[in-house]
Amino acid sequence: MAKIDLQGIFPPITTPFINGKVAYDKLASNVEKWSRTGIKGFVVLGSNGEYVYLSEEEKRRLVDSVVESAADEMLIIAGTGCESTAETLRLTEDCAKLGAHAALVVTPQYYAGRMSESALMTHYSELADQSPLPILLYNVPKFTHINLAADFVARLSEHPNIVGIKDSSANVIQLGEILNGVAGGFDVMVGTAGVLFAGLTLGCVGGVLALANIAPEPCVKIFKQVQAGDFEAARDLQLKMLPVNQAVTAVYGVPGLKAAMDMLGYFGGDPRLPLLPSSERERSEIEVILRKADLLNQR
Amino acid sequence: MAKIDLQGIFPPITTPFINGKVAYDKLASNVEKWSRTGIKGFVVLGSNGEYVYLSEEEKRRLVDSVVESAADEMLIIAGTGCESTAETLRLTEDCAKLGAHAALVVTPQYYAGRMSESALMTHYSELADQSPLPILLYNVPKFTHINLAADFVARLSEHPNIVGIKDSSANVIQLGEILNGVAGGFDVMVGTAGVLFAGLTLGCVGGVLALANIAPEPCVKIFKQVQAGDFEAARDLQLKMLPVNQAVTAVYGVPGLKAAMDMLGYFGGDPRLPLLPSSERERSEIEVILRKADLLNQR
Amino acid sequence: MAKIDLQGIFPPITTPFINGKVAYDKLASNVEKWSRTGIKGFVVLGSNGEYVYLSEEEKRRLVDSVVESAADEMLIIAGTGCESTAETLRLTEDCAKLGAHAALVVTPQYYAGRMSESALMTHYSELADQSPLPILLYNVPKFTHINLAADFVARLSEHPNIVGIKDSSANVIQLGEILNGVAGGFDVMVGTAGVLFAGLTLGCVGGVLALANIAPEPCVKIFKQVQAGDFEAARDLQLKMLPVNQAVTAVYGVPGLKAAMDMLGYFGGDPRLPLLPSSERERSEIEVILRKADLLNQR
Amino acid sequence: MAKIDLQGIFPPITTPFINGKVAYDKLASNVEKWSRTGIKGFVVLGSNGEYVYLSEEEKRRLVDSVVESAADEMLIIAGTGCESTAETLRLTEDCAKLGAHAALVVTPQYYAGRMSESALMTHYSELADQSPLPILLYNVPKFTHINLAADFVARLSEHPNIVGIKDSSANVIQLGEILNGVAGGFDVMVGTAGVLFAGLTLGCVGGVLALANIAPEPCVKIFKQVQAGDFEAARDLQLKMLPVNQAVTAVYGVPGLKAAMDMLGYFGGDPRLPLLPSSERERSEIEVILRKADLLNQR
Repeated sequence: MAKIDLQGIFPPITTPFINGKVAYDKLASNVEKWSRTGIKGFVVLGSNGEYVYLSEEEKRRLVDSVVESAADEMLIIAGTGCESTAETLRLTEDCAKLGAHAALVVTPQYYAGRMSESALMTHYSELADQSPLPILLYNVPKFTHINLAADFVARLSEHPNIVGIKDSSANVIQLGEILNGVAGGFDVMVGTAGVLFAGLTLGCVGGVLALANIAPEPCVKIFKQVQAGDFEAARDLQLKMLPVNQAVTAVYGVPGLKAAMDMLGYFGGDPRLPLLPSSERERSEIEVILRKADLLNQR
Repeated sequence: MAKIDLQGIFPPITTPFINGKVAYDKLASNVEKWSRTGIKGFVVLGSNGEYVYLSEEEKRRLVDSVVESAADEMLIIAGTGCESTAETLRLTEDCAKLGAHAALVVTPQYYAGRMSESALMTHYSELADQSPLPILLYNVPKFTHINLAADFVARLSEHPNIVGIKDSSANVIQLGEILNGVAGGFDVMVGTAGVLFAGLTLGCVGGVLALANIAPEPCVKIFKQVQAGDFEAARDLQLKMLPVNQAVTAVYGVPGLKAAMDMLGYFGGDPRLPLLPSSERERSEIEVILRKADLLNQR
Repeated sequence: MAKIDLQGIFPPITTPFINGKVAYDKLASNVEKWSRTGIKGFVVLGSNGEYVYLSEEEKRRLVDSVVESAADEMLIIAGTGCESTAETLRLTEDCAKLGAHAALVVTPQYYAGRMSESALMTHYSELADQSPLPILLYNVPKFTHINLAADFVARLSEHPNIVGIKDSSANVIQLGEILNGVAGGFDVMVGTAGVLFAGLTLGCVGGVLALANIAPEPCVKIFKQVQAGDFEAARDLQLKMLPVNQAVTAVYGVPGLKAAMDMLGYFGGDPRLPLLPSSERERSEIEVILRKADLLNQR
Repeated sequence: MAKIDLQGIFPPITTPFINGKVAYDKLASNVEKWSRTGIKGFVVLGSNGEYVYLSEEEKRRLVDSVVESAADEMLIIAGTGCESTAETLRLTEDCAKLGAHAALVVTPQYYAGRMSESALMTHYSELADQSPLPILLYNVPKFTHINLAADFVARLSEHPNIVGIKDSSANVIQLGEILNGVAGGFDVMVGTAGVLFAGLTLGCVGGVLALANIAPEPCVKIFKQVQAGDFEAARDLQLKMLPVNQAVTAVYGVPGLKAAMDMLGYFGGDPRLPLLPSSERERSEIEVILRKADLLNQR
């Protein structure tokens, strides 16, 4: 299996809905627009894609649609994590057939108290043994209430088909410990733009960032500035983008991210219930934040 | 819609698997055995039923199978909660057609930080408005990291088609506050045998109890003793069953519950991965606990 | 050492301040008034006594003052827990000299992550070995972020000079496990009125209850009703008092408790900063709650 | 009041005990040794100084002793935070008289649920209004279970006598938000070496670091490398020191820090009970970690 190149910025793309149905045409036009921003590829079926609200059929069609729409050089990563090992494997195999290049596998979470390292080792090993796609671990304690500790990630990194991690913990100490501990060739990706600059300067190869749905260019710029050793500029841009990132993640969540997309020329639309669309007041607040960060023209 | 009668004990039944496939014959024999213990009915597709590991097809067939196997007087409650409102409604409608009498609807959980009371009110109201089955709320913060607070439950209880709650928080203060606040005719059910005696003496109408999978008779006995005013005997039996309940819930989880079933004449079997089956050592510890509680003969 | 009798209700009394200074005369008149309500004794220097805001000198004088003011048959329990073992022992010895009958010792908490069972065993054993007073454990995770688990309490209960526990966790499962596990003669006391009825019916000998500062008579009544086997009446009174208890603990805290005291004929007064006194709005809300529970005359 | 200069590295020094008594001579020799390492000054009475185990008298004498032992150019910061506002002010005044240059004031914590922004604003404002020393906020949620959010820190930074913060949350997003929000001239200090490099590159002026008790030179080196723009070298040293820092903070705590001091030519000694000294096994593990980081000679 040829090693995939994860260096760069990936938006974990939102799923557009119109009247509760997936709007594949809007997805295609978003993909086209994102493709011109310097990003390295796409993550489909991630947390920002409301994957927990999608049927198996919708998941397959979404991956298919992105593979079709995206330029050839784009790397397509599919979120294939399900609660059960068997279902995760089945979806991973389907996504491989559809042309995805890697699978991003979130930790199972419902029985969090039983997800011991033994259980998770079994889950990821069985999957990686059989998966036709290289596996990326996905650590997102905010949603799963499970954390993949650095020494456990180091053990998982020994598997030849587990090739990286998206760590969305925002825990920079842990990022450092992971970087210190993992096997050679295992890639560490920043999972939230809130610590993009910190993660890249420590040695992460790239980022999978909700923020890249609405502000891919600044994310790519920070990535390139750090690569070029221009740390001061990268730091300044990081601090400028920080309030925007907080808005579209911690404060207003996926609905806020979609609202911001609508303001910035992408199709955002409403989330599926029970996620409520942003209120008018929230949209006004988001707009102010986008203007302050020069993502929208100052009035 | 005729009011359903929730007074009594309900096991949230486990799902038997053989080689990873649902063993419907084992389910039928379990149901037959449970039916002779004095329980009031069954909860299918609950947390102890590993519902998060079941496909839609399996869910429907499981409900169908229990409806077929159970005696006519048994009340069948189906766990129909999914992450999205639309999918929850669809499954609820399917379960109604299959003959279930009520739907137990867990709180959506993945985007826990966005599950405001507005979001949850929308979710449950839309569902209850359209559901052909009466809705029971299911509060299980241990798994969902969301708690339905008492005053919010009181508001939900005003809906004519939201008829009760299974509160598995084990929070007896909250049980009291819920009992104080809810509309007349809204039933409060204890969701864990650890506070069965406490909940019943406070005014809960019954219990949905993992423990009732392996020890339905003692659960029914506590229920009847409290009804008869024989509190001392109920208290003694509660304290005797407490270590067993802790073992098959907090300590060893669903795998331990299934292992205990195997020891007690039911079919337990293995859980689906990533839940690991109980180890030999864990089984020995469980056996000791069952013997101490006189559920297995003392050696 | 003669065994102390903990059967009954104890208010963990508030500390009256006027202009930031301890008002010993107000304390004496409160003690006199409480003494006529049927309570068994007093806890001085507890969490509701703002013990963390008191100097060593004030602590000693407060114990002295309560010993002087209280009737001879009243049991005086002093909160002597400090962060260090040595300081705890010194204060315990001082309180013994001043005439206290037992010491209530909260878990040290600042270095919560280091408070392993070894550390806590050393702390309590050293103390109990040397203390002239019998030791009561004080488990209050709400404030300390440490929980004394049932099996650890069972081990501590083997020490001849550790004679009981006030468990303020409100965890009724844990109360049951403690009752199941502790040595004979070790007394378990309910630490919050929210689970007074549940705790007493399970086998607790009494209660140390913030609520008993403002409503000692109902607390004593519930205690006597349970002793007399009149569970229905006890349950009804428990449910009636529940909103009051929540108000003066979880919702409005020590400032709210003191405000309620002022409304009910005791001297409450202001807490020490940084605890802020209840606002006018909060006082109005508290008043409504007291009226609904018939503690204040209905208007 | 002349502005104090917080640029640089400060160890929050441990308190040496021999047979439970403060060993002032050992303190003096430690201070002398640290003074030759390039640090900017000292924090006395911090969390690593076991301040919660010290009497008022010991606190005063410790500050006095450090002021006496330290070279004139050293900045002396005293940890004066107590639970009550009044006691905090009194200790701050005492430390001013003893020659300290600034006061580091931890958030009160026992009644964490009542420590609203109003309560904390009152606490810090009253203190800052009256304090003869400039006030540094001390945010250490690990110990206090309270977090000073960035927008609240921004509000506090408007007070002319609140001049900075030591943020030990290890939350780099929050560090960025604080840097974005605070008033000009308000200094942000990294509170844990785990994010020293990340904090300094973002714009923090210096660090108060447990690690600087045992490895002041590498901490100073990282500080100077970042100042000089030599980010790659700083990053490498950061990653090399990370396991050491985790050992003497999260893993082995203050006892482990003191054990490491003993290995590295400082006087560490035992902590006060209930903190237990590191076991032999823990000391061996610490030694291995120190060797791997080249702080002890490789065997």
